[in-house]
Amino acid sequence: MAAVRARSALLTGSNRGIGLELELRDLASRHPNLVLVKLDVADPSAIVDAAKVVEGKLNGAGLNLLINNAGIFTPVSLETVDSEEMIRSYKTNAVGPLLMAQAFLPLLKKAAQDSKEKGLSCNKAAIINISAILGSIKKTPEFYFKPVISYRCSKAALNMLTRCQALTYGEAGILCVALHPGWVKTDMGTQEADLTVDRSVQGLLSVLPILSEKHNGMLLNWEGKAIPW
Amino acid sequence: MAAVRARSALLTGSNRGIGLELELRDLASRHPNLVLVKLDVADPSAIVDAAKVVEGKLNGAGLNLLINNAGIFTPVSLETVDSEEMIRSYKTNAVGPLLMAQAFLPLLKKAAQDSKEKGLSCNKAAIINISAILGSIKKTPEFYFKPVISYRCSKAALNMLTRCQALTYGEAGILCVALHPGWVKTDMGTQEADLTVDRSVQGLLSVLPILSEKHNGMLLNWEGKAIPW
Repeated sequence: MAAVRARSALLTGSNRGIGLELELRDLASRHPNLVLVKLDVADPSAIVDAAKVVEGKLNGAGLNLLINNAGIFTPVSLETVDSEEMIRSYKTNAVGPLLMAQAFLPLLKKAAQDSKEKGLSCNKAAIINISAILGSIKKTPEFYFKPVISYRCSKAALNMLTRCQALTYGEAGILCVALHPGWVKTDMGTQEADLTVDRSVQGLLSVLPILSEKHNGMLLNWEGKAIPW
Repeated sequence: MAAVRARSALLTGSNRGIGLELELRDLASRHPNLVLVKLDVADPSAIVDAAKVVEGKLNGAGLNLLINNAGIFTPVSLETVDSEEMIRSYKTNAVGPLLMAQAFLPLLKKAAQDSKEKGLSCNKAAIINISAILGSIKKTPEFYFKPVISYRCSKAALNMLTRCQALTYGEAGILCVALHPGWVKTDMGTQEADLTVDRSVQGLLSVLPILSEKHNGMLLNWEGKAIPW
């Protein structure tokens, strides 16, 4: 399996689930510039602070890969959801990735400028937003066994954000892709899920190296297959 | 042009733009049970209060048609947007319609139960969410001259909400559709817009009567044409 050759990567949400596994299994061992920072992506000022810490640790280098993996999932229906829960999920799942990209943009741009790679790639500079098939509006009727309305709406918004980031940041040499990790046996996915963490992580790690400008602004699953909006 | 034969309708956002025009031009003259209530859809408790007022005015009848038209549009880019603006737009454009449907659901269900019409229609019971083509993730590259990221993300979420409402409320006899009114010469759309208010309103009013179960959970434009997610 080809590996990403990014010199530096930042992964949010690495305290549990896929994040923890990704961190432990691959990134920590492969990327000497991996930076781990305690961070609540729902806190705008914490994001700005984290960017300063990361900048300091990078010693003048750029950041090649920002993986916005932090996310929350609340089992609410249209009947039980309230305004607070809608906003809580939106803050973490959609606004967090937006603010992360804003704060780390100078470092991502630097990585793109310093890279000799042509086109767009995770080796050069990329924002990977971990989204979900439950955020696909078109696919909703196929997966409506779980209403999870606050999660779905926030992920649909994250997909829109990814598309807009691709159109805005692509010109600066930064690839922007949304990835669906599958329904994974984690705290979030529960043990009823389809995929082991291992299979999802192996899938995601095999997709990252093949991403190029033709995937910019798309939603792909852990096998690299496109998912409609 | 066929008209909607709903006995009662509630339209939010009727203080300006399309809302004002819709109200003045058509609904107020045609629907004896039209109820106008001062209401900020970003205020959950105001919504609950409004539902009580409306219930009182309906004298035991149900509500046939809820049009979630209230919306805000802020000209921000990925660079200039902040957390507060993201959440402000989400509250009004996505969470507001969700809470409106929750609060008015008993009245909409009553209208559906009391109706002798078969299938789904605006004459029977319907939630119409006024959305936007700018909320179409697929269409984003065609309309990226205005970034308006907080608006786009909130409308993508509203489209997801509409799809979920259709799957949940359809069984209770309530039609749920998202409509794009076009780019209209209003305070929101500015005078650079394509469509006069008159043409948009005439279009929307001609679409409402033809909506049926086959449109449930779709995003349509002011001419009744489907827009991809």
